[in-house]
Amino acid sequence: MPAMSDELLQDLLAGVTPLDEAAMRQAEERQTQLTKPPGSLGVLEDASVRLAGIAAECPPPPLLRPVVAVFAGDHGVHAQGVTPWPQEVTASMVANFRAGGAAVNVLARRARADVLVVDMGVAAELEPGPDLLDRRIRPGTSDLATGPAMSRDEAVRGLLAGAEVARTLVARGHDCLLTGDMGIANTTPSAALVAAFTGAPPEQVTGRGTGVDDATLARKVAVVSAALADRPPTGDPVATLASLGGFEHAGLAGFVLGAAGLRVPVVLDGVIAGAAALVAAALAPDALGYCFAGHRSVEPGHAVALRGLGLRPLVDLDLRLGEGTGAVLAFPVVAAAGALLREMATFDSAGVARKEGP
Amino acid sequence: MPAMSDELLQDLLAGVTPLDEAAMRQAEERQTQLTKPPGSLGVLEDASVRLAGIAAECPPPPLLRPVVAVFAGDHGVHAQGVTPWPQEVTASMVANFRAGGAAVNVLARRARADVLVVDMGVAAELEPGPDLLDRRIRPGTSDLATGPAMSRDEAVRGLLAGAEVARTLVARGHDCLLTGDMGIANTTPSAALVAAFTGAPPEQVTGRGTGVDDATLARKVAVVSAALADRPPTGDPVATLASLGGFEHAGLAGFVLGAAGLRVPVVLDGVIAGAAALVAAALAPDALGYCFAGHRSVEPGHAVALRGLGLRPLVDLDLRLGEGTGAVLAFPVVAAAGALLREMATFDSAGVARKEGP
Repeated sequence: MPAMSDELLQDLLAGVTPLDEAAMRQAEERQTQLTKPPGSLGVLEDASVRLAGIAAECPPPPLLRPVVAVFAGDHGVHAQGVTPWPQEVTASMVANFRAGGAAVNVLARRARADVLVVDMGVAAELEPGPDLLDRRIRPGTSDLATGPAMSRDEAVRGLLAGAEVARTLVARGHDCLLTGDMGIANTTPSAALVAAFTGAPPEQVTGRGTGVDDATLARKVAVVSAALADRPPTGDPVATLASLGGFEHAGLAGFVLGAAGLRVPVVLDGVIAGAAALVAAALAPDALGYCFAGHRSVEPGHAVALRGLGLRPLVDLDLRLGEGTGAVLAFPVVAAAGALLREMATFDSAGVARKEGP
Repeated sequence: MPAMSDELLQDLLAGVTPLDEAAMRQAEERQTQLTKPPGSLGVLEDASVRLAGIAAECPPPPLLRPVVAVFAGDHGVHAQGVTPWPQEVTASMVANFRAGGAAVNVLARRARADVLVVDMGVAAELEPGPDLLDRRIRPGTSDLATGPAMSRDEAVRGLLAGAEVARTLVARGHDCLLTGDMGIANTTPSAALVAAFTGAPPEQVTGRGTGVDDATLARKVAVVSAALADRPPTGDPVATLASLGGFEHAGLAGFVLGAAGLRVPVVLDGVIAGAAALVAAALAPDALGYCFAGHRSVEPGHAVALRGLGLRPLVDLDLRLGEGTGAVLAFPVVAAAGALLREMATFDSAGVARKEGP
């Protein structure tokens, strides 16, 4: 029932409201009282102000229970030879996440974050379990090189599923949501979405993903260019998502919108999350206030997406793995920003003299 | 007894040996087996290889007990009006560190790092206690604008004291040493040291520190330029340190050398640590292998120092506070790099297919 889904989507978008200005002003004022030269904590000060605006409370409450939701899906465009990795690696990496052996698991253990996989549409059947949320739309998208990747109704259902994942995780007590993703070939739809939403040329936003050779990169660029030429973006973000995206993009965009509606901070991972955040921002611009850019990946479309989103990455370590690794590495920075606002002494309380002069 | 001190310094330098090549090769090889595209963990892979070389063991042992040593000192050059902050703020910030109210304390609690102050020569008397190591050379350096900041013997004693602090902390069970610093006016001697060791012009390496106005910045540049013109660097690193440095620079340079001799990783903070690391590297180039650049601060001399050291910063968040804040923010990244090498599944163990083709 597309009509009902569309109504639910409108409700979701209407739930996204701006950051709380009063709490942000309080946070800015408090930053000037803390025992440090004004502005000397740089990006951490800005992040602390935003956390106050998100929570509508100054100082913002601690972020104690982060979770990485790894949205997984397969892609019809795999058939175009845009990656040297076999499609079944999506499912075997999902098994690796669930066994705790992937990079995101190692980093999440250190950050005391839970890891959970959301099956948005992996080609293979996955073993059910409490560590897997089954939100399958279909076992993989259609090939975006030959037509829309999904129907409009599927895109809407993907968005709603992602928002529902955010609600489920917050209801379980998680207070900070980190995005993860897995899907062999998913840098191709990401590049297409970034090009569609920012207007950047395909060759500027299409990269080597997990490490493709020159010929494969040329194929990726050709696929993205042709899809954009065949089905130019119409200004309807849901239609663009359906035309070019993956099920994990739909889920992630909904996840961002859902988190924003619940006033919970989201830490974005790399280019897949960046592309999804562009969808979310096109649907509800205020959602961006709730997003922190975890890192900047090597994938060229990610820098373009971040510029489009107006977000500054917190970590910049030449990562290009995905999975949520960049978001998990950045989580301690986000949490620290709030802790500084809560825990630092003030000039008055510590009896420290201020600087002299004007 | 300068002669005896010089002999101890030679022993210290002789104790600094290269990273272990065999362990590094093993780590590089292991990185190719882990369930991720080759190179996709970027800087984390390089860091993990270096940790193996430092420990001479692959995988390297976990870093479980980090400590921030905040080297504190006062500066005769304060008399030149190079900062709007009163000199007594050094001592009151030391009290703030000891009470747990400063930014570095908040961040260290999150990273489960201890914080300890090393008094290298604060002008005021400090309350003794187990959280303070008294390594006072003298209550503040001489004014580098009018003559050498310290004697050669004082510089050597400062270096030896810093190395002894590293030994003390490692003997207490700390397995990763983070540099911190406190000393009103200390960006001026830092700029002078960076200029002396890199050859960069004073106006390029001298910055606004904690936030000085244009007139004060011009005075800082003039002071640094005049000191370098009056007493040009001779190629003897200890003489340059004595001419231009602070007691905390001497202590920090010795701390780096001591840690390297013990094969323990050091995470450097900002421009003060960068200047000190240039001293250490000039005395024993192999010491650099044991250093990670925690962050890049806003202070322009820091980027120049990092280029001179050939170190890439792990965090880049426009900080300019010092205290060790950048080092503590970076510690989780360093520790995570080693954890990835220890804990990630391999393609074989996880049954994940590798990419196809060449």
